[in-house]
Amino acid sequence: MSEPAIVLGPNQYGKAEVRVVKVTRDAARHGIDDLNVTSQLRGDFAAAHLAGDNAHVVATDTQKNTIFAFARDGIGSPEAFLLRLADHFTGSFDWVSGGRWEAERFAWQRIRVGDGEHDHAFVRSGQEVRTAVVVADGADRHVIAGLKELTVLKTTESGFEGYPKDRYTTLPETHDRILATDVAARWRYGRHDVDYDAVYAGVRALLLEAFAEGYSAGLQATLFDMGRRVLERHPEIAEIRFSMPNKHHFVVDLSPFGLDNPNEVFFAADRPYGLIEAAVQRDGVGSPAVAWEGIGGFC
Amino acid sequence: MSEPAIVLGPNQYGKAEVRVVKVTRDAARHGIDDLNVTSQLRGDFAAAHLAGDNAHVVATDTQKNTIFAFARDGIGSPEAFLLRLADHFTGSFDWVSGGRWEAERFAWQRIRVGDGEHDHAFVRSGQEVRTAVVVADGADRHVIAGLKELTVLKTTESGFEGYPKDRYTTLPETHDRILATDVAARWRYGRHDVDYDAVYAGVRALLLEAFAEGYSAGLQATLFDMGRRVLERHPEIAEIRFSMPNKHHFVVDLSPFGLDNPNEVFFAADRPYGLIEAAVQRDGVGSPAVAWEGIGGFC
Amino acid sequence: MSEPAIVLGPNQYGKAEVRVVKVTRDAARHGIDDLNVTSQLRGDFAAAHLAGDNAHVVATDTQKNTIFAFARDGIGSPEAFLLRLADHFTGSFDWVSGGRWEAERFAWQRIRVGDGEHDHAFVRSGQEVRTAVVVADGADRHVIAGLKELTVLKTTESGFEGYPKDRYTTLPETHDRILATDVAARWRYGRHDVDYDAVYAGVRALLLEAFAEGYSAGLQATLFDMGRRVLERHPEIAEIRFSMPNKHHFVVDLSPFGLDNPNEVFFAADRPYGLIEAAVQRDGVGSPAVAWEGIGGFC
Amino acid sequence: MSEPAIVLGPNQYGKAEVRVVKVTRDAARHGIDDLNVTSQLRGDFAAAHLAGDNAHVVATDTQKNTIFAFARDGIGSPEAFLLRLADHFTGSFDWVSGGRWEAERFAWQRIRVGDGEHDHAFVRSGQEVRTAVVVADGADRHVIAGLKELTVLKTTESGFEGYPKDRYTTLPETHDRILATDVAARWRYGRHDVDYDAVYAGVRALLLEAFAEGYSAGLQATLFDMGRRVLERHPEIAEIRFSMPNKHHFVVDLSPFGLDNPNEVFFAADRPYGLIEAAVQRDGVGSPAVAWEGIGGFC
Repeated sequence: MSEPAIVLGPNQYGKAEVRVVKVTRDAARHGIDDLNVTSQLRGDFAAAHLAGDNAHVVATDTQKNTIFAFARDGIGSPEAFLLRLADHFTGSFDWVSGGRWEAERFAWQRIRVGDGEHDHAFVRSGQEVRTAVVVADGADRHVIAGLKELTVLKTTESGFEGYPKDRYTTLPETHDRILATDVAARWRYGRHDVDYDAVYAGVRALLLEAFAEGYSAGLQATLFDMGRRVLERHPEIAEIRFSMPNKHHFVVDLSPFGLDNPNEVFFAADRPYGLIEAAVQRDGVGSPAVAWEGIGGFC
Repeated sequence: MSEPAIVLGPNQYGKAEVRVVKVTRDAARHGIDDLNVTSQLRGDFAAAHLAGDNAHVVATDTQKNTIFAFARDGIGSPEAFLLRLADHFTGSFDWVSGGRWEAERFAWQRIRVGDGEHDHAFVRSGQEVRTAVVVADGADRHVIAGLKELTVLKTTESGFEGYPKDRYTTLPETHDRILATDVAARWRYGRHDVDYDAVYAGVRALLLEAFAEGYSAGLQATLFDMGRRVLERHPEIAEIRFSMPNKHHFVVDLSPFGLDNPNEVFFAADRPYGLIEAAVQRDGVGSPAVAWEGIGGFC
Repeated sequence: MSEPAIVLGPNQYGKAEVRVVKVTRDAARHGIDDLNVTSQLRGDFAAAHLAGDNAHVVATDTQKNTIFAFARDGIGSPEAFLLRLADHFTGSFDWVSGGRWEAERFAWQRIRVGDGEHDHAFVRSGQEVRTAVVVADGADRHVIAGLKELTVLKTTESGFEGYPKDRYTTLPETHDRILATDVAARWRYGRHDVDYDAVYAGVRALLLEAFAEGYSAGLQATLFDMGRRVLERHPEIAEIRFSMPNKHHFVVDLSPFGLDNPNEVFFAADRPYGLIEAAVQRDGVGSPAVAWEGIGGFC
Repeated sequence: MSEPAIVLGPNQYGKAEVRVVKVTRDAARHGIDDLNVTSQLRGDFAAAHLAGDNAHVVATDTQKNTIFAFARDGIGSPEAFLLRLADHFTGSFDWVSGGRWEAERFAWQRIRVGDGEHDHAFVRSGQEVRTAVVVADGADRHVIAGLKELTVLKTTESGFEGYPKDRYTTLPETHDRILATDVAARWRYGRHDVDYDAVYAGVRALLLEAFAEGYSAGLQATLFDMGRRVLERHPEIAEIRFSMPNKHHFVVDLSPFGLDNPNEVFFAADRPYGLIEAAVQRDGVGSPAVAWEGIGGFC
């Protein structure tokens, strides 16, 4: 019996991390869009892999140029910009059946001068990074918005108790600890007639509010509460996924120095850290695998 | 009609990036294993998310302790070590139906002193990082070995021609350029009676050899050749996946300074970069999705 | 004639990057201080280097413990905290004649819930990092405050013209470009009866204002204007130093695609970047070298 | 009495991190030089800062172009390349009285294919980064070679005992621990008729050998031994400075799990870390401050 042939499996390619800045300057008050865009094409690229025939390989340089050219007409929300790119590439080349476009968006605030905001000078917000992914799969368009690196901490109203103890358990129970994490969330839209910027602002506020309010029995419980609030208030969102480290803050034992430490002095550890990942979904509503492929760190 | 209920979807949790160093010192010549281990459990954790009930939540601190305790008996190959962890956690807790264990392994070389190698002093290799993943899914065990950050470059015998030209294409064709990439590869074993360390060394050598030899018509062609060679020589490997940036080296235009530049002076760019991702597989041999979930950057 | 003896030169040692978080919880509204502290001692440590005699080596672990213990009494401004450490170490060990203590301070904002600010839940600001250095040199105390990673950008009112042209010059002149930088500034106090937090807020506002206002003929001119404003308004500051990259934003040539680009679409480059470093001082007021040693990236 | 005028203090500017790759291809066996070069000019730049007059400001873009143009003639050792740049800039512009040129050099190894080394395919070494600095100060040229990120570890023959104990000391003494560090060293040449590449290889070997051999009573003692060996064997080197973290590897307490741990299982910590910095010099031989300015992390 002969060995099975060696074949090309799933594949995609493109240009990653195109740093495009678009200035809107049709009025004295300028606007700025600052994006990091990645374009990846899927389709029939077998000949390039198997025979070095590049007739189907839309150059990654061409993909980069297209991003800059499309920015000339304005960017708007990152989701809308990626949808334009998806339609362009799948519509322009017969053999491009789909692809994946991703953006990071960096926020800028106007510099305050005297009592007002400056027209054309900005300071980078530095808080969370907004993310967007559009997956084209034939005629389907999957839109996944998100954010990452939103670092939050609560100094009390958090604990961890009631967990199983085995031979390797040494952790003491606590009902008062610091809870800290970097929120990374991705939410998939169930429909496309959406004001992406407005929903983004709404979700962000809900995530912060859910983190702040109430007692946390564990990061899992907090995560689910964050997701539940988002789905309850945003019917346009089909599901939301989280990947959140438990950034440990250890109470320092000051007793050798004759000092007490009633949860006041902490050591903020780097590694290892807990890592909690989960999806919050609507019962009976499917979650298309193709939309989530390639999003690392989300189960 | 009522809204569908909000439910918990796929989830996993654990301790990430446990930096464990194991010294083998049963002889004058010491050995060293240096790993970064992540443990994530899957199973029935609904109560923790929905009700803050942690009765099923094996503490991530306990997972960390277990990693250190298991290292006491020696580590061996990272794949074998992760398999031990997988069997322990799924075997110890009824509600843990599976999980994902991942390791990075950092290589050390003995320091040369005089004519020989030192017994207990090492210098870190600094070349590629070895990776390993074990996914437990009920009784199944998926083992995926790999490497990353293996940076290679060839100064000639590479080109890019014959690609489609559209309105946005400005890239000139070339049959002589620098080709450079950081190889990231992951290969899934089709069976488990494997000498993981020996196969690792063999695959690594094949990847380098394939990159070096012959003319590259594009990174896609080089990628497939790398995968093909691995599958041809290693029947124990079921499939291999790659994610490789095209690290652009641009020929600098020296003509304004009255100088020619026959492919000798290059600017090494950071961003954007090409990104080529593909799987090389055996025809008719399935690729279990559960094995690959959560491996970012691989389509 | 014999060779000169090999001797120990300048030296210092200590514990770097102690991540201490202090929660103030004497009221329902909690406070948080989040610092990264480095302690380095100078003095008579020759025996440790030359003979392996550690009788003078205050363990770096002890230095770490001291930082945590001192935090128990509250941190206050980073400058005041470092001064306490300096006095402790130089006062406790005869052979410790001085040292250098440094801190990074990370800012947190209260999470907004409903109409108000939450009592004990915070989101990290993510904007600039505040820095502080105290150098003890015998009885002298040098205090250098600062900030870094304050990223600013103006979309117009910046140019670069009138520079010398030589054989290697290809840059075209412009009177309308994007100017962007990461402000890193360090200012040395001339006296110690200072409200460090208030001055910090004032300097930060002045730096932003100077960057925003007026036309910039070059990053050097902007830098000096920033420094001049600070010294004019803050007599307690003896001098200020800057290290600022010129983060290039290149206008993309869209003409191959039949598009104009009136300074609207830019490529944000990573490397190389301009780098502008200068001190702004008061005429005839000395600048003690010992205060500035070890501050990399400042000439 | 009037306030002292606000004036420009020390300053420098230039282009940072020019990533230049030079291929030598005059034979079938190609060579490669891979550098990250920074050029900074010092001199009379007051008008640019005070009046926005750029007549003296050699554009940082011009400096970048010059680096690429000079690479056309070959790079050779990084020290020689930087000396050429220094002579060019100080010789071409009257008002440029000096400057600072710095390079990082990344090493590449030939890929092994079959029994031999490939002619034009390389794998990046990934071990230490070679560094070089040339400071021009009028007619003076200071040359400082170095390396960084040379990570070494010994599994035994290291201890730390006999240190002073105070109220804040909890560290137990040990005569058997892991010693690990990232060697960063900078050595200044006392004369210029030097084979820089050969000396580099010699110093690197001595540093490794000194780390490996003998018992270490502390990182200070090891540091001094490393420096002493270098100065004894290399009369062309005037002094050497080190900045080395003590990368802590903590013995894990396995006793709660009924296991002993005879220095076999360690936790490799990230932060905090010890930090040891010192110069090893020749008695009576001066150390020019101007040569060392701007080298962060070295006292």
